[in-house]
Amino acid sequence: MTVNWDEMMAAAEKEMPAKRWKHTLGVIDSAVSLAKRYNGDPDKARTAAILHDVAKYWPTEKQREAILADGHEAGLDTLEYDAPLWHAHAGAYVARYEFGIQDEEILDAIRYHTSGRVGMSLLDKIVCLADYIEPGRNFPGVDKLRQLAESSLERALVEGFDGTITHLIETKQRIYPLTVLSRNDLLQSGGK
Amino acid sequence: MTVNWDEMMAAAEKEMPAKRWKHTLGVIDSAVSLAKRYNGDPDKARTAAILHDVAKYWPTEKQREAILADGHEAGLDTLEYDAPLWHAHAGAYVARYEFGIQDEEILDAIRYHTSGRVGMSLLDKIVCLADYIEPGRNFPGVDKLRQLAESSLERALVEGFDGTITHLIETKQRIYPLTVLSRNDLLQSGGK
Repeated sequence: MTVNWDEMMAAAEKEMPAKRWKHTLGVIDSAVSLAKRYNGDPDKARTAAILHDVAKYWPTEKQREAILADGHEAGLDTLEYDAPLWHAHAGAYVARYEFGIQDEEILDAIRYHTSGRVGMSLLDKIVCLADYIEPGRNFPGVDKLRQLAESSLERALVEGFDGTITHLIETKQRIYPLTVLSRNDLLQSGGK
Repeated sequence: MTVNWDEMMAAAEKEMPAKRWKHTLGVIDSAVSLAKRYNGDPDKARTAAILHDVAKYWPTEKQREAILADGHEAGLDTLEYDAPLWHAHAGAYVARYEFGIQDEEILDAIRYHTSGRVGMSLLDKIVCLADYIEPGRNFPGVDKLRQLAESSLERALVEGFDGTITHLIETKQRIYPLTVLSRNDLLQSGGK
């Protein structure tokens, strides 16, 4: 894979406020570390991490348009749910058409970094978990997640999704069904 | 509706241990009360409550056979999940073919009393909530449920399902997706 990391990073940085770019830098570090620990591909992890939130600060209408243009079923499904889910799918579209990423594994890792999916790939797991545990995160329970991440991607992700679901319950928000399916699937594939 | 309540109750009682029958008597009382409070049909609520757990103590293989014989899509879906979900669907089959219940509203209230469904009917809500709050229940949070039940079926049911989901998270068990869909749907129809 030949990538000009500097150019990609400079372009991604322009799409978000400084605080979110700092978060992205943390996700890059964590994703590369996880890839090395779990025999993933550090270059793919880096690329997906750089671009995972590239559409997060787009106006929601522009995110919706990207999802409609992309036409991916999983993205269209999020349009029935709450807007914070959209940026992952819009980001996959941007990665493909504005950054020229053709590797479906990288695109999927961007696409599913918020919800997960049934049958998450190793790269999906790495990017999704890095987003939970990057050094800038400080929500209750993040230290337990970081500890679990040292021994099991699946256990750490189940714990992460369970925290997300619990937060949605406590704040009386809708729970995205795919997150539940992802969590159930991980539970059965080593996450127990 | 002409029903011989005594015969139905005697037959249902034979299908379960004394403790569960006591629970059923509690659900009958609570369901009839809720029906009166929320302008439901107390007779239908009584019938569904008498029969809601009629298949719960059947061997799981017999429950599976009833679900397969019934052929209802929602029942077949539970066969992919954990066995405690099966008795509701097996119960609807028994209610129809052994107790001669033809009223689809009653059958659905039995069928969906554990999972709920998107677009729960008034009778579904009454029976499902009665199952949570009958006087014999004493799980943490049941008093809050009983209090909510005085003013909103939907708010009480969201709280009930949220408790179920939280319990499944705490015990690292799979979460049945339809429960999440039911809960999201109730949240948007008055349960917030």
